[in-house]
Amino acid sequence: MTHWTLTEQDLEAIAIGAGVLGTGGGGNSYLGLLRTRGLVRAGKTINIVRPCDLADDALVLPIGGIGAPTVGIEKLDEGGEALRVIAAIERVLGRKVDALIADEIGGSNGFSPMIPAAELGLPVVDADGMGRAFPETQMTSFFIGGQASAPAALADARGTVMVVTDAPSANDLEHTMRAATIAMGCTAMMSTAPMSGAFIKAHGINLSVSLAKGIGMAVINARRSKTDPVAALNAASGGRVLVTGKAVDIARTTTGGFARGVLTVEGMGADKGRSLTIDIQNEFIVAREGSEICAMVPDLICIVDSETGRPVSTEELRYGLRVSVLCLPAPRKLRSEAALKVVGPRAFGYDFDFHPMGAAFEPTQAPEYTP
Amino acid sequence: MTHWTLTEQDLEAIAIGAGVLGTGGGGNSYLGLLRTRGLVRAGKTINIVRPCDLADDALVLPIGGIGAPTVGIEKLDEGGEALRVIAAIERVLGRKVDALIADEIGGSNGFSPMIPAAELGLPVVDADGMGRAFPETQMTSFFIGGQASAPAALADARGTVMVVTDAPSANDLEHTMRAATIAMGCTAMMSTAPMSGAFIKAHGINLSVSLAKGIGMAVINARRSKTDPVAALNAASGGRVLVTGKAVDIARTTTGGFARGVLTVEGMGADKGRSLTIDIQNEFIVAREGSEICAMVPDLICIVDSETGRPVSTEELRYGLRVSVLCLPAPRKLRSEAALKVVGPRAFGYDFDFHPMGAAFEPTQAPEYTP
Repeated sequence: MTHWTLTEQDLEAIAIGAGVLGTGGGGNSYLGLLRTRGLVRAGKTINIVRPCDLADDALVLPIGGIGAPTVGIEKLDEGGEALRVIAAIERVLGRKVDALIADEIGGSNGFSPMIPAAELGLPVVDADGMGRAFPETQMTSFFIGGQASAPAALADARGTVMVVTDAPSANDLEHTMRAATIAMGCTAMMSTAPMSGAFIKAHGINLSVSLAKGIGMAVINARRSKTDPVAALNAASGGRVLVTGKAVDIARTTTGGFARGVLTVEGMGADKGRSLTIDIQNEFIVAREGSEICAMVPDLICIVDSETGRPVSTEELRYGLRVSVLCLPAPRKLRSEAALKVVGPRAFGYDFDFHPMGAAFEPTQAPEYTP
Repeated sequence: MTHWTLTEQDLEAIAIGAGVLGTGGGGNSYLGLLRTRGLVRAGKTINIVRPCDLADDALVLPIGGIGAPTVGIEKLDEGGEALRVIAAIERVLGRKVDALIADEIGGSNGFSPMIPAAELGLPVVDADGMGRAFPETQMTSFFIGGQASAPAALADARGTVMVVTDAPSANDLEHTMRAATIAMGCTAMMSTAPMSGAFIKAHGINLSVSLAKGIGMAVINARRSKTDPVAALNAASGGRVLVTGKAVDIARTTTGGFARGVLTVEGMGADKGRSLTIDIQNEFIVAREGSEICAMVPDLICIVDSETGRPVSTEELRYGLRVSVLCLPAPRKLRSEAALKVVGPRAFGYDFDFHPMGAAFEPTQAPEYTP
């Protein structure tokens, strides 16, 4: 199996790229970086495989954190949660899994499969189910493509492990998992149902680990060459700037297992006099300028530090931060009619249809891996 | 295995006795009666076995409903929940169970193991883990005696099934199960970990199905002979009357997955001028007269219709109801130091120690079963 072994530099680039793709959520990617970099420095290996290199009958298990990012930065993982989740699913299936994959590439969840993969010597697939981060379990291209709603497993830091063996729908799975997560202290590690290699090829948001690395490298290289990191980020992701300015108001509550709130960014410089408000549900969901809706899910609304291109997650937002608000076009698989029922604005309770920002963007060519 | 086959008359008596032992909770026992009587009328058989007749290595699975009784009377069971719970546990264990038992004899939960037992041809043990009803999962003589905290299973009416494969403690199990139950709409069917026949003999509240039947028969016979059903009930259970009067105020909320509230009963007749307040958390927990505490958990505070001896559950309470408030002494296994940590007043957040009402009461002799 052709693979790419992650270096420390790759991890640093992925932390930036996954942070951007996290659209404010998915967990703080710096924490994911610290965990994976520690494993690599301790001599562990994290191998990435392309979807096209997976056997069609390979058993691929998605791994991700569930909960509120605001809690995730205060209550760190114990470390063995994902291993307990994998063991629980393997017990139910009566067989070992062949590879791990992220449910969401965004935020620390881009790193979630890498940590157990390093421990277990399993490869991580260069793909995920969102190409970004979303607040709810069922909001993946996997479920949109027909992934089974069970078995799924959940493990917390204290040692509780639960398996959902049957769920009538992915939404029922989300309700049960979310409620149990709240009881577990609002953060837990999760696996949804295992999938085949053939299924990943058809329904994954493919090459998203490479995309995260590409975005991160663009930002790092711009910093080194003292050029504009935001422009470099947009060139690497198909994005554009909605406004450049200052965070002037942030209302935030952690409720129902989610971080919710509203952010206001006032324009500065060329954007002086403009004002954007952005609705938050773990991620940035909808951006408005007055009564005009400028960007909405599933397109990615991302906030980065204007000077450095560093992604800013919802839990880091504070008054006075100089930020650029960006919109990156969602991948094609999130823009289909079936997908928009699950991840479009109406799925978040808004009474309007999706209007895309530009053409879908995704890596069109598999990167060449050097084994 | 010596057994006793339930008749319709037995079921009617058990519905009264389980209602009394439910101390206001455990689910409405009339609903349990309707379900089991329907099965018996359809030709199904429900066999009861004494704990002393269980093989020491028999695998016994506890079955009970979890949720808020206020919801349970509006959102009826689908019917297959317990069967799905049993199948989930059998899959985890890789073997069939030999008998079912109630976690709590009180309320409809006294009937909870009988319904799947009739379907599966399994016997039901003449014992339970409470000798009454309690609001939380960990409040059983089984857990007090060291029952494992996993595996446990939960199933709802829509088809969701979840298994807790690991839990650091019974309290963690309760938190996870309660949260998932709320997500399932506030009622679900549950099994805690399977136990051996030897364990049931040592740690069960034994012969509690017989006790429920005995209480019910005493009430039925008193009604027939036009004698005082409340006096007959007390004679069959070791209880005494705290006050006879009228429900004059009931504050009730369904919150955190529980039915909570406060009831006020004003004395009538010989008790005129007296007033009792009773705290509710699914069950009647503490009764006070002014500043004096007259009865408290784990002793049983029971409310019955003064005329008929019919038990009144918390969700049926309403202004004007003529009631007798009774206190029945708790069984010995709930009064040990270890037990009081789990089911005494401090476990419910009160700042006082348990003061027992009279000597512990329990059937001292196994009834003679006619096979």
